[in-house]
Amino acid sequence: MSAYRPLTASTLIDYLSSLAPMQTRLGGNSADWTAREVSDGNLNTVFIVSGPAGSVCCKQSLPYVRVDPAWAMPLERTLFEARWMQALSPAVGHQIPELYHLDEGLFLIVMENLSTHHVLRNALIAGVAPAGFAARIGEFVGHASYATSWRALAFEDVYALRDLFSRNLALTRITVDLVLTDPYRTDCPRNRWISPELDDLVESLQTDSVLHAAVERMQERFLSSSQALLHGDLHTGSVMISGDDVRVIDGEFALYGPIGFDLGMFLANLAMNAYAQPEHDDWMRDEIALLWSSFRRAYLERWEAGAQRGDMASLTRPASCAAERTRFFQQILHDCAGFAGLELIRRTIGFAQIADYEAGSNRENEIEARRRALLTGRTLIQKAFQIDTIEALLDQI
Amino acid sequence: MSAYRPLTASTLIDYLSSLAPMQTRLGGNSADWTAREVSDGNLNTVFIVSGPAGSVCCKQSLPYVRVDPAWAMPLERTLFEARWMQALSPAVGHQIPELYHLDEGLFLIVMENLSTHHVLRNALIAGVAPAGFAARIGEFVGHASYATSWRALAFEDVYALRDLFSRNLALTRITVDLVLTDPYRTDCPRNRWISPELDDLVESLQTDSVLHAAVERMQERFLSSSQALLHGDLHTGSVMISGDDVRVIDGEFALYGPIGFDLGMFLANLAMNAYAQPEHDDWMRDEIALLWSSFRRAYLERWEAGAQRGDMASLTRPASCAAERTRFFQQILHDCAGFAGLELIRRTIGFAQIADYEAGSNRENEIEARRRALLTGRTLIQKAFQIDTIEALLDQI
Repeated sequence: MSAYRPLTASTLIDYLSSLAPMQTRLGGNSADWTAREVSDGNLNTVFIVSGPAGSVCCKQSLPYVRVDPAWAMPLERTLFEARWMQALSPAVGHQIPELYHLDEGLFLIVMENLSTHHVLRNALIAGVAPAGFAARIGEFVGHASYATSWRALAFEDVYALRDLFSRNLALTRITVDLVLTDPYRTDCPRNRWISPELDDLVESLQTDSVLHAAVERMQERFLSSSQALLHGDLHTGSVMISGDDVRVIDGEFALYGPIGFDLGMFLANLAMNAYAQPEHDDWMRDEIALLWSSFRRAYLERWEAGAQRGDMASLTRPASCAAERTRFFQQILHDCAGFAGLELIRRTIGFAQIADYEAGSNRENEIEARRRALLTGRTLIQKAFQIDTIEALLDQI
Repeated sequence: MSAYRPLTASTLIDYLSSLAPMQTRLGGNSADWTAREVSDGNLNTVFIVSGPAGSVCCKQSLPYVRVDPAWAMPLERTLFEARWMQALSPAVGHQIPELYHLDEGLFLIVMENLSTHHVLRNALIAGVAPAGFAARIGEFVGHASYATSWRALAFEDVYALRDLFSRNLALTRITVDLVLTDPYRTDCPRNRWISPELDDLVESLQTDSVLHAAVERMQERFLSSSQALLHGDLHTGSVMISGDDVRVIDGEFALYGPIGFDLGMFLANLAMNAYAQPEHDDWMRDEIALLWSSFRRAYLERWEAGAQRGDMASLTRPASCAAERTRFFQQILHDCAGFAGLELIRRTIGFAQIADYEAGSNRENEIEARRRALLTGRTLIQKAFQIDTIEALLDQI
C-alpha cells in the first residue's frame, strides 16, 4: 500500500514497474511501456498502459469530481468498485473485467484492458452495436442479483456484504440527489434544459405534487428495499462491447438495493437512444423485451438449480410456487418501471445528461426526443406499481 | 467497564455500590440493599435491587439461553438492548424504561424498575388489563418507526443505525429460525404440539408447498425490507402495564425491518388471548382495531408535523398525497397480516409457546384455541397481500 498521490502517465509506469506480476503482464522493460490517459466518465482518471506483452487499464480516484474539481469527493470509491468486482466475479465470470491489482493507499485499480471493446453508448449512437446485446445485461443482472440475495446466501453473509457497501455514502448521496431528488426541485442550479422550448414541461414536472409523492415512493424503495447487490449506475456508458462479448464496468456506485433499479436504469437508456434516434425504435424495443426475458430466465435458472441456497430456500423446493414466482417478478417490474421513469427525467434535465440526444444535428428532433423522455418518465413513475408485464411497460414507452 | 462474570445477588450489590449515581438512587448503605432475582424471559438473568431511597432493575446476559443452558448464545444481546433504548428514547420518551447505566464488559444494563407494573400477558390472562392499552402500543410503533426511518433522517444516519443493529446476528438468527422457518419443518425437534389431536393439522402445515412459498415471501420481507428500527419481539410479554402507563421492554431483538413485523406480532398475541379466553373476544377485537388506528394516527402526526425531515421529504409537503399515503399504510398492513400469521403458528407449535393457552383448565378448549390459531395463521400468511383494511384483517381473525 502506497501513500496517495494523483498519478501521471510517468509516475504510473514507475509504480507498475515495481510490481512483478505487472512486469510479466506488460513484458519487456518499463522503458518500453506507454501510458495513455483515456478518462471518459465524470469522476476518475483512467490510463491504458501498454507494453510489448500486453496492456492493463488503471483507474484512480481523485479527491474531487474529475469534470468539476470544485466538487470534493472522498477517494474511497475505487475501493468499492474493487469490492464489487470481488463480490460478483464468482457469479458473473467474464461479464466484468478481471481485477489484477488493488492499491488501497493510492486508491488505484489495475484491471483487464478491454482494448477491442467499445463503450455501448457510443456503439448505439453510431448504430454499430450488435443486436441482442441486452440479453447479456439481463443475464448479468439475473446472476448478480441472485448470487448476492437471501435466496443464495445465509442472512448473516448478506448483512455483512450489505454493511460493507452501505459505507459507500458519497456515491449513494450522488444517486439520492442527482437521480431521486434534484430534477424535481425548482431551485437546483445543477439542472439544465433546452429553453424556452421545454420550460413549460419542466415547470410542470417540478410543481406536480402528485408526481413528487410518487417520486418519494421510489426513494423509499431505493433506500429501504435491499434485495441484492446492485451495480448502481448501469447505463449504456457502463457497458463495453465487442461482438458478443459484453462487459459491465464502473461498479463504484455499488450498494444493496431493489433489483429493479439496475434494470430500470438500463432500460431507460435504451428508450432514450430510440427517442434520439427514432430509426432505432424497433431495435430498442426488442432489446428491452430481451433485457427483461433474459434477466428473468437467468435468475430463475439459478433459483431452480438451488445453487448456494440461503435462508429463503430452507423451506421450499426451488421456485416451487408459480403464484409467488409471478408476484416476485411483478414487484421487480414495478420497481423497474419507476426507476426507468426517474432515469429518463434525470438524464434529460439533470446534471449528468447523455450524448445520444446530440447524435442528430436537428434541434427540433432533439427537443422532441427530450420531450418524449420527460413525458414517458412522468407516466412510468406514476403508474409504476400498475405495470405488471413487460408488454405493458413497452406500451408506455 | 468490568471483566465479564455472571453476577449473583451479592456480587451485583457489590458492583452497584461502586457506582456513585447508584448510591444516590438506592440510598443509605449497600448493607441495606437487597437483590431479588426475577428472571422471567427465556434468555437473561434479571434482578431487582432495592434500597432505602429507591430501586433499579438489572439485566445481564448469560453466555447461553437461560432456559436451555446447552444452547450457547453470545453475550452482546444486552448491548443491543441498550442501544435500542438509546436510539428510541428521544422519540418515545417514557414508553420504554429509563436506562441508568450500561456496563459493556459485564453485559449489564441497569434501568428503571417498573415495580408497580405487571407483565401485560399475565394481566390479560387474569383479565385485569385496562381496556385501551393497545392504543399506547400503536403510538409506540408509530413514533419509533417514523423517527428511525428515511422520512425523519438523512439516509446516511439511517444506514449507520441499520448497520449497528445488523450485527445483532445471534438474535436475528433466532427469529429467522424460530419464527420464520422451524414450525414448517417436519424434522425440527424444537416443535411440539398436543398430540394426537393436532397431528393432522400440523402435518398439513408442514407439507403444504403453497403455504411454504408464502412463508418464504414473508422471509423475504423480513430480511430485505428495512423500513425502520423494530423492537423485533413485540409480544404481550414484552409490555409492562400499570393503569394507563404502558411500557415496552426487552428490545434485545432490535433490528431494521418492515414496520408490519412489530404490529403483526403484537396483534397475533391479542388474537391468541381471545382464542384461549373466548370471553375476551370482543375486547381483543377492539384492541386490535385500536392498535392499528393509533399506529396510523401517531405515524401520520409525526409525518405531517414534518419533524426531523430526511431525504424522503426533501421534495414533498408532509404526507401530501392521499393515494400514496393509502398505498404506504396498505403495504404495512399486508406485512402485518403475514407476520401475524407466522406468530400465530410459531407460538402454537414452535419452541417458545405462550401461557395464555393454559389459562383454562379444559383440554378441549385449549385444543380448539390452538386449532383456531393454526388455521387463522395459515389464512393470514396466504392472503396477507390481499388484506387492505383492518376490517378485512379482523374478518379473518
